Amino acid sequence: MLENLPKKVTIRDMGAREGLQNEPKQIPTEQKLELIRALLRAGFKHIQVTSFVSPKVVTQFADAPELLKKLEHPEGVFYWATVPNMRGLERAIDSGINGISLPISMTDGHNIVNMQRTTAKALRDAEQVISQARKANLYVIASTSCAFGCPIEGYVSPQKVVENCKRLEWMGANALAFGDTTGMANPRQVWNFYKMILAEFPGMEISTHFHDSRGMGLANVLAAMEAGVTIHDCALGGTGGQPHTARDQYAFGRLGNVCTEDLVSMLEEMGVHTGIDLDKLIEAGKLFEQIVGRELYSFVTKAGPVKALWGGGKEYLDDFIKKFGFKDA
Amino acid sequence: MLENLPKKVTIRDMGAREGLQNEPKQIPTEQKLELIRALLRAGFKHIQVTSFVSPKVVTQFADAPELLKKLEHPEGVFYWATVPNMRGLERAIDSGINGISLPISMTDGHNIVNMQRTTAKALRDAEQVISQARKANLYVIASTSCAFGCPIEGYVSPQKVVENCKRLEWMGANALAFGDTTGMANPRQVWNFYKMILAEFPGMEISTHFHDSRGMGLANVLAAMEAGVTIHDCALGGTGGQPHTARDQYAFGRLGNVCTEDLVSMLEEMGVHTGIDLDKLIEAGKLFEQIVGRELYSFVTKAGPVKALWGGGKEYLDDFIKKFGFKDA
Repeated sequence: MLENLPKKVTIRDMGAREGLQNEPKQIPTEQKLELIRALLRAGFKHIQVTSFVSPKVVTQFADAPELLKKLEHPEGVFYWATVPNMRGLERAIDSGINGISLPISMTDGHNIVNMQRTTAKALRDAEQVISQARKANLYVIASTSCAFGCPIEGYVSPQKVVENCKRLEWMGANALAFGDTTGMANPRQVWNFYKMILAEFPGMEISTHFHDSRGMGLANVLAAMEAGVTIHDCALGGTGGQPHTARDQYAFGRLGNVCTEDLVSMLEEMGVHTGIDLDKLIEAGKLFEQIVGRELYSFVTKAGPVKALWGGGKEYLDDFIKKFGFKDA
Repeated sequence: MLENLPKKVTIRDMGAREGLQNEPKQIPTEQKLELIRALLRAGFKHIQVTSFVSPKVVTQFADAPELLKKLEHPEGVFYWATVPNMRGLERAIDSGINGISLPISMTDGHNIVNMQRTTAKALRDAEQVISQARKANLYVIASTSCAFGCPIEGYVSPQKVVENCKRLEWMGANALAFGDTTGMANPRQVWNFYKMILAEFPGMEISTHFHDSRGMGLANVLAAMEAGVTIHDCALGGTGGQPHTARDQYAFGRLGNVCTEDLVSMLEEMGVHTGIDLDKLIEAGKLFEQIVGRELYSFVTKAGPVKALWGGGKEYLDDFIKKFGFKDA
C-alpha cells in the first residue's frame, strides 16, 4: 500500500551486463572496470558485472575472467554474472563471482528464439547447473524471462510460471527474478502476480526485473513494492533489452530495463531508502554514455534531481525581474 | 488501493492546446481541426481545444474563435479552452466552448515568470473571471500550476495550495486541476496530496495534470488513482511543457505532459475503462507527428499495443525454426 511502503529497498544494477549484452562496440575491459567502480562509488552493493555466456556467441563478455581478476571486491559487495549453462558455470567457479543468474524463459517460443531450447529442456539443464553452483558456494538467482507475457506466444499463465519456479526452488535456487522481458506487464497484473509469488515462495528472495518498452516500468516497480517486493533490478541509463527479438516486429521501442537513475530518483524522493547517492549515480550514467558514445535514456539526468530545485531559483527570479521588470498591480 | 481501482476513469486530452502552446511552427486551423477530429474518432469526450490567451502573446491560438466556429460539436462532448484573464473570457463567451480552465500558479516565483503577476494578484483577478464565466454558463476548471513543487521556489506547501483553492471554490470554480508543471511530484507525495484534497473538496471535480520530466508520470497517475482520483489530464504524444521556464536551467528534459497513448495503454491493460480506442488513438498521435513534423514521445506507439502480441507470434516462430532449424535435445 502506498501509505505503508518499505523504509528501504535493494537496487541491483545490471548495466555492465544486460546494458552491454547487445552493444555492438567491443568495450575495453578497463572501461568496464571504470563503470563498475563508478557504481561502487554511488553506493551499489549488488552489481551484475558480466556474463559467462560462450565467448563465441557474445564476444562482449569474452573478458569475464580477466575483468573479475582485476576488479577490487569491497566487503559486503555482491557481484553476480549470467551463467546460461554448465560450460558457463565451469568458467564462473573460482572467478571471484558471488552468485549467478540462470536465465530461463517461461515460454517455449521465447526460449527457442533466445536460447535454442524449449522450457522443458532448459529446466532439465538447470538442475545440474544449480546443484554444481550451490556446491561451489555460488548464490543462485533463477532469472525468468517473459514471466508477464511473451512477444511470441502472447499470454503467459502465472500458474505455469509458479510451476516452473517450484521446480527451480526444489533444485536449490536461492532467489527468483521475474523478467518482463519486453515490457508487457501492467501495474495491476504486477500487484496480483507478486502477491501470489510472495505467498507461494516464502523462503526465497523475490525481485522484479522490468523493461520499459511501454513506459510502465516505474509504475510497475511501485505496484510490486506495494505488493511487498523489496529487491528491484534496473540498468544504468535504461540500457538493456533484446534487439534480436525486436528486429522481427515483436518488441520495438526503447526495449531497455527500468532506468537506474530514474528509479533511484523516484524512490529517494518517496523516502524509500536505496543507499545510492543520486548525484554520483548520474555521474556513473554520464560515464556510461561516454563509454558507449551516445545519449542514453535517463529522464532525471536531463531534468536534474528534484532536490537540486529546493530553494535554487531565487537568483533566477531576481535576474528575471531585473531583465523584464515586474510591478504587481 | 491496487486491488480496488475504479472500473472507469475520464481521460482529457490537452494536445491541441498545451501540446501546441510552444510549437514554433504556426499550425493551420484545418490541421488543428483534423487533430481534434482524430481525438473524437478515438472516443474522447473531454478535449481542450484551444486557448483564449492574447493573440499577440501566443500567435498559435489567434484562430481560436474561427476554430470553434468550424468545429462540429457532437452530443456529449465537452470542449474547453484556457482563459487567463477577462480579455480572454470576453472572446471565449459565445465562442461555442463548454468550459474554461483558468491558470493560476501556487508560487509567486512561477506566477511572475509565467504570467507577470503574483499569486495574490492572480487570485484577485480570478474572482471576476470566474463569476462572469459562471454567469455565461461556462464550466470553470481552476488549473493550478506548481502544486507539487516549483522550479523557482522549490518546496510548495500543500496547505498553501488548499488555502488558494478554498478561495477559488468560494469564487465559484467547479473543478480543480493540480498541475505538476515541471515533473517534480513523486507517487507517495501524490497519494498523500490527493487523499487530503479529496477530503478538503468533496463538492468539486478533482483531476491530475502531471508532466513527465523525470519519468514518474504514469506512476503518479497510478498513485492518484489509488487515492481516488478518476479524472486525468494528458497530452497526445507527450507534448506540452514550458520551455520558457526550462531555457534557464530550471526544468530541462522532456517537459511534456503524461503521454495520452501510454496512459490509455496502461489503463486499458489494467482493466480500467477509458472509453478510448487505443489503435485509433495511436493513429491520432501519428497524425500529430505529421502535423508538427517530428517524432513525439509515446513509448507505446513505438512498441505497439500489448494486445497486438496476444497469439501473434506463432508464424514468427515457425519462420524462425524454418530459417535456423531447431531440435530440442
